Amino acid sequence: MTKKLINSRPKVVNVGVDTFGDSVKAAGSDSVQVDWRPPAQGDAELINILLALEEYHDEIGKANEKAVEKVLAAQPVWIDVGPALDVIPGFTPDTVLHAGPPVTWEDMCGPMKGAVIGALIFEGRAKDKDEAVALAASGTLKFSPCHHFNAVGPMSGVITASMPVIVVENKTDGNLAYSNFNSEKNRKALSFGAFDQDVQDILIWQRDVMGPMLGKAVREMGGIDLKAITARALQMGDECHNRHVASTSLLLREMMPTLARLDLPREQLAELADYMLHNDWFFLNFSMAACKATMDSGHGVPMSTMVTAMARNGVKVGIRVSGLGEKWFTAPAPPIRGLMFPPFTEKDANPDMGDSTITETCGIGAFAMAAAPAMVKLVGGTVAEAIGFTKTMADITIAENKAYTIPTLDFLGTPTGIDIRKVVDTGILPKINTGIAHRQPGYGIVGAGITEIPMECFVAALKAMYQSI
Amino acid sequence: MTKKLINSRPKVVNVGVDTFGDSVKAAGSDSVQVDWRPPAQGDAELINILLALEEYHDEIGKANEKAVEKVLAAQPVWIDVGPALDVIPGFTPDTVLHAGPPVTWEDMCGPMKGAVIGALIFEGRAKDKDEAVALAASGTLKFSPCHHFNAVGPMSGVITASMPVIVVENKTDGNLAYSNFNSEKNRKALSFGAFDQDVQDILIWQRDVMGPMLGKAVREMGGIDLKAITARALQMGDECHNRHVASTSLLLREMMPTLARLDLPREQLAELADYMLHNDWFFLNFSMAACKATMDSGHGVPMSTMVTAMARNGVKVGIRVSGLGEKWFTAPAPPIRGLMFPPFTEKDANPDMGDSTITETCGIGAFAMAAAPAMVKLVGGTVAEAIGFTKTMADITIAENKAYTIPTLDFLGTPTGIDIRKVVDTGILPKINTGIAHRQPGYGIVGAGITEIPMECFVAALKAMYQSI
Repeated sequence: MTKKLINSRPKVVNVGVDTFGDSVKAAGSDSVQVDWRPPAQGDAELINILLALEEYHDEIGKANEKAVEKVLAAQPVWIDVGPALDVIPGFTPDTVLHAGPPVTWEDMCGPMKGAVIGALIFEGRAKDKDEAVALAASGTLKFSPCHHFNAVGPMSGVITASMPVIVVENKTDGNLAYSNFNSEKNRKALSFGAFDQDVQDILIWQRDVMGPMLGKAVREMGGIDLKAITARALQMGDECHNRHVASTSLLLREMMPTLARLDLPREQLAELADYMLHNDWFFLNFSMAACKATMDSGHGVPMSTMVTAMARNGVKVGIRVSGLGEKWFTAPAPPIRGLMFPPFTEKDANPDMGDSTITETCGIGAFAMAAAPAMVKLVGGTVAEAIGFTKTMADITIAENKAYTIPTLDFLGTPTGIDIRKVVDTGILPKINTGIAHRQPGYGIVGAGITEIPMECFVAALKAMYQSI
Repeated sequence: MTKKLINSRPKVVNVGVDTFGDSVKAAGSDSVQVDWRPPAQGDAELINILLALEEYHDEIGKANEKAVEKVLAAQPVWIDVGPALDVIPGFTPDTVLHAGPPVTWEDMCGPMKGAVIGALIFEGRAKDKDEAVALAASGTLKFSPCHHFNAVGPMSGVITASMPVIVVENKTDGNLAYSNFNSEKNRKALSFGAFDQDVQDILIWQRDVMGPMLGKAVREMGGIDLKAITARALQMGDECHNRHVASTSLLLREMMPTLARLDLPREQLAELADYMLHNDWFFLNFSMAACKATMDSGHGVPMSTMVTAMARNGVKVGIRVSGLGEKWFTAPAPPIRGLMFPPFTEKDANPDMGDSTITETCGIGAFAMAAAPAMVKLVGGTVAEAIGFTKTMADITIAENKAYTIPTLDFLGTPTGIDIRKVVDTGILPKINTGIAHRQPGYGIVGAGITEIPMECFVAALKAMYQSI
């Protein structure tokens, strides 16, 4: 019954108790009982909204078809590297991007504040934590979600003016997306809220050495096809959100001939190779920028109920929907079930944070967990559960991405394009896998695990869609 | 019943018809019907040998335990590179190693002859094909299986004096093993019997540039742990016989910092990076040398029925058994079921060839196909069959290798150490996956597929074991 509600105009809505359905069926009417779940968890208001939207079944269906076709047709290619100030339109020296929906300095969680402190010290705007806190609270800075600048950043997502950023072009539509470079070589990483000298050294090296070197190489190569790397990595045990061993290795292997031929000091090349050897998350930010360029191309289709962004700032989770403009539909950020790195425990854990859920929005990450069963060693759970995630997510998505296939599931394509109607109807929440930041500034990563985007976001979006029609 | 025959002294041997077993069981006796297969395919002589060997059940069991423990404890580390003449003990300028059991020049198959021709031209011993053929037929050269020199080579397995070879040490026991470098960047590869100028160029570059460069790097690094790379690659979609995308990428990534710091011309490093980028089989020869070092350590245990080598020369297949010394037990090389590369068809295909089955002997390759379901695109068959191979091979092996686990099968260890008794008893033949060479010299690879090591080898070995006791 749950599926029928969205896929066609139902004859009888049977909520929960299947004996009623049986009696309808026995009488020769049209009733199918799929599972025990009542539509919209039995919420009468939501059932009425879902039924009302059924009046626009064909229009919404066509809009979603158009939106998801854009997503499937996208061809994200990494084309350039440059300082955020130079390459991201609208960026100013005072701009401070952060992950998730909008949040003020005062309301930011600990690790996001830690990352802002680290970034301000790196930018030379503050000489220590106290100066950075004072500047952040002064009203001088322009805080903004990364998403408002076509950008994405993992965890805190903090991007400031002189950080080098990855520039990705969706060659199909020409739209651009951006991400910073991964700072997660050590557990005390800027993205997770650490800001000590080791973090500063990585930021300085990324700005002065790695960024210019990779920019030179990628321009020399005429771009690198991130969709091709992602497709291969999904056949090599990566799910491209929290496992990037294959993609990072493939990226290095692809760039190495060009890097070796550049007129670079030997030691700088060795430093880059070292950094990529010891950071298995290196490709994460490329994956995210590729997914952002992809999902942006499916955004803005009137009547479409497809989710085009899911992001968390450590306090709130927000989603955006293709047919609902720039509005965020938010809920409190949930805790994460997972494995903590000793000596840390769950009481140290910040709630869910980061733009990296753009990967799940795009049908990979936890949606492709069946491709990466070894991940259960990082995030907990069983192999059967990991494989189950991919199958379950098919119930709330619009299409199967035939470019991203999972060999173990007989080359099933990844479930792509979350439909807010299906989430509300089935009660199945989008799964995400994620790192866990310490709730205080200065610590870094303390674990990894699994969580879900809260129902509240989808309910709010569904109501907005109903009101907009 | 089949398992019982080997694992304990059976009370009643029930061949085939289970109603007889039922009646025994109903009478309160000890009888178990596992499946329909009659032991040893119902061959009375073999059943008698199996039963006779049961008298030595404990001794053989202990010997196999000891042999497989050596295999599981082995730590193959790549330690050096040097010309075959310098690093392989007993090698002379006239030595020509080849794959599989012994074979004379006259009896060699087309692609093996092609590789010998190519090697003699490369060595400067012949200026063209005719001179090479004359030299090969003259009796001057010393042809020998690679295995007789603790070496292994894929397909033709031809190794001559000035070819650089990979030196692997099993750090647990100190024994060494060798392989040449992979020549399979192009379909027309020496190992598959091609010998034209492109092949010569690769051999010259490997001797003059790649070999010395990699030797310098690996010595500088103090060795590279091939067991660790194999273990990671098995979690990344490789089965480490015919899929090496992950292992090749991991190897390059691990060596790159050291390679970048060596005092080498920029262009040479770029050439190496290019070669490793465009040859997804690069790690094959490392995998083989690692497996050879591993299996040699389990060889020579008196009474052990564990297979320590399986190898094919394109005419015959041979196996060696731990407790049966240096003797080869042979059978005609079988054809291969698989996918041919157009325009080639099955009539172009040479029978099974190469030492690369040392990987299956060691429990990876087709034995680990569940780790590499994407391989069905290369070798044919279904994902379910690929996963089934790993499960079935557990029925003819002694141990589970907990260092080599398969995430999709809930981290099951690879099935390791083939027991000739189990093969004969169950009728289950060891699966292998392999490339297919053109049957004429000069062509190269024309397909890839699946085959099995023939029963005849195991029957001959079992009879020899029986006679030796």
